[in-house]
Amino acid sequence: MKVASKVLTRRDLEALDRDDPLREFRDRFSLPEGLIYLDGNSLGAMPKATPARVREVVEDEWGRDLIRSWNINGWIDIQQRIGAKIGRLIGAGDGETIVADSTSVNLFKALAAAFELRPDRKVIVSEPGNFPTDLYVAEGLTRYLGRGHSLRLAEPSDIEGAITEDVAVVMLTHVSYRTGRMYDLQRITERAHAAGAIMLWDLAHSAGAVPVDLTGADVDFAVGCGYKYLNGGPGAPAFLYVARRHQPNIRPILSGWFGHASPFTFEQSYRPAEGIDRLTVGAPPIISLTALEVGVDLMLEASIDALRAKSVQQGVIFEELIAQELGEGAVSLVSPSEPAMRGSQLCYALANAWPVNRALIDRGVIGDFRAPNILRFGFTPLYVGYVELWDAVATLKKILAERSWDRPEYHARTRVT
Amino acid sequence: MKVASKVLTRRDLEALDRDDPLREFRDRFSLPEGLIYLDGNSLGAMPKATPARVREVVEDEWGRDLIRSWNINGWIDIQQRIGAKIGRLIGAGDGETIVADSTSVNLFKALAAAFELRPDRKVIVSEPGNFPTDLYVAEGLTRYLGRGHSLRLAEPSDIEGAITEDVAVVMLTHVSYRTGRMYDLQRITERAHAAGAIMLWDLAHSAGAVPVDLTGADVDFAVGCGYKYLNGGPGAPAFLYVARRHQPNIRPILSGWFGHASPFTFEQSYRPAEGIDRLTVGAPPIISLTALEVGVDLMLEASIDALRAKSVQQGVIFEELIAQELGEGAVSLVSPSEPAMRGSQLCYALANAWPVNRALIDRGVIGDFRAPNILRFGFTPLYVGYVELWDAVATLKKILAERSWDRPEYHARTRVT
Repeated sequence: MKVASKVLTRRDLEALDRDDPLREFRDRFSLPEGLIYLDGNSLGAMPKATPARVREVVEDEWGRDLIRSWNINGWIDIQQRIGAKIGRLIGAGDGETIVADSTSVNLFKALAAAFELRPDRKVIVSEPGNFPTDLYVAEGLTRYLGRGHSLRLAEPSDIEGAITEDVAVVMLTHVSYRTGRMYDLQRITERAHAAGAIMLWDLAHSAGAVPVDLTGADVDFAVGCGYKYLNGGPGAPAFLYVARRHQPNIRPILSGWFGHASPFTFEQSYRPAEGIDRLTVGAPPIISLTALEVGVDLMLEASIDALRAKSVQQGVIFEELIAQELGEGAVSLVSPSEPAMRGSQLCYALANAWPVNRALIDRGVIGDFRAPNILRFGFTPLYVGYVELWDAVATLKKILAERSWDRPEYHARTRVT
Repeated sequence: MKVASKVLTRRDLEALDRDDPLREFRDRFSLPEGLIYLDGNSLGAMPKATPARVREVVEDEWGRDLIRSWNINGWIDIQQRIGAKIGRLIGAGDGETIVADSTSVNLFKALAAAFELRPDRKVIVSEPGNFPTDLYVAEGLTRYLGRGHSLRLAEPSDIEGAITEDVAVVMLTHVSYRTGRMYDLQRITERAHAAGAIMLWDLAHSAGAVPVDLTGADVDFAVGCGYKYLNGGPGAPAFLYVARRHQPNIRPILSGWFGHASPFTFEQSYRPAEGIDRLTVGAPPIISLTALEVGVDLMLEASIDALRAKSVQQGVIFEELIAQELGEGAVSLVSPSEPAMRGSQLCYALANAWPVNRALIDRGVIGDFRAPNILRFGFTPLYVGYVELWDAVATLKKILAERSWDRPEYHARTRVT
């Protein structure tokens, strides 16, 4: 797919930036001068409004108002409040989304609940290329239960066939962290329901990146994280969506006081709170949540459709630039070639991906390396412009042409991410 | 127990403040002018160093260094780094403490691990007055497992008798949130071990408040929170201690990618990390953790023995002032009368505790109400002086004498905490 039949120039991309309806959002983020940040799908950039709001929660709400802030500054329902906002980004209904814990912990809650909702079934279906923590959490729970519970893995092309009548829950990541491949959420959900299974979607690479309609697709559970496209800050708490119809039937495996019907009467026995509140657990990290809320509020100002349109166009152009500038065979696209089938990132396999990525970072182009040989470039339309795509590809071209990646320090594997 | 045979005066307390070896720490905290804060055991005060450090992690580490901060700013091992510092406050050995998740989630991990370490046993022993979330978490896990697992509750005086040979784990809070009563940690641990049970201590009201020697007592598991005496900020992440001898034998029920032996090689199957690292789960909330580290660092500067000595003296004096100023029968002490048997708080039962507490707050004395009829006053020796105890009691005396608590707005139960 080509945007234009002619060769693309940097000037063409400047024109696209000028006409970009989302252009104003770029100034709402703080990014170092000259840095090309194509890793917002790993850690989103910092909204300029965040430091002042964080200062306020620390100095005024904590430092001055102290314990009273649970009441007077709304700490007590911050998990529901931010959850409701994220719910609007993913097509959830009122009272179906909270912010709590990490994505991993929320996956655990959802899987455990799914087994109780389908007491005669013991199989979790997923794919081997799912994000590892999803698989690890499923493995940890099924191993612990040890009563024939198991995790069944099938390649994406075989997923539908794997959803048989013994499956309790299908757990998939909507947009693959590794390839950017996007599932047909509605179709897979329908297939799960047809087999009587619960559908659990991991929206880590979807929320704030692609339109999601959980209500329209009748999804049962969903999780996702706050620190990628939602720009909520490092390790920002995660979200959990539970369809309203299931909420009254869930007795949380993680029964904490925040999920009690009356946390501050200190009753001896657990009584689940109404609705999704029962899936909160312990006291939430207020400062990190406050930063998350700023990111979510900013995301809510943008049109998800405009955002998706720009994301798709950025992907198409990036793909075209890679082909045009690097020529055949330098790298090979791992992501689907059809834009509608991929999220807001492109992944390429290439030899020496690790040192090439190190060399890119040293030259101010931050993407991601994903084992074993993948370079991942994320497009975050709120703050990444078109010209930056040109400059990123130009930098990659130069690194490959000059073999400047081939330095001992770039080969060293001392870094953890 | 009386400090002096004479009647105490405000001047006596001024003298104690002048001679207080911890006095210098008061200036390291930011507290509103004139506020008497006796609720540091619910939410600790803000260290003055916190805002600058939080600004740094937000603006520089996130905003400027972005994803690189996992490596260059030490985010990747922040859970181990802060854990090690807290470990020094509770007598843990190297590599036995991490910071992760909430206290509730850590209780869950520990209880689940205890059942695996004692596979032939299915009973959790606790007391009905334990902090509710401890009981709720135990209830949630035992109910979910549903294979004869149960929670056995015994009053503190009967605890030792309840620890029979069928007990997998004894779970107690070292210092009671409601009465301040402190268990003999070594003795109960020995009793648990004699019966072949695992010992799990909740140190929420102990860490940073009273000396704890987990190594000396050979404790198996401990948890606690960062937002009370550690002054880590609202909802600060919690800590988890696991004795080194158990670590290799634990397959975490919550198996997340941060607890994997190699999180960033994205392997398909879970391989537990070495040691306690395996009990981390998801990406941790870095901003809240950064605030916690400031509080812990400050606490490490103080001598825990000096801190305990002042705490004990503050309790004795407060008790004496209550008796001297309020007279017989106005309130009744719920905490143990022997200072060595209580933590860093005093609790009194009285009629109309709820509106009295509201009236105190309106007059700048912040303690805590605990259902059904308890006023709780916490002593945090790093920033609470002796004169404040006088002023708090004087305020309480005036409220009771003038019945100024008896206003409709003070009776209303609109507040959640």
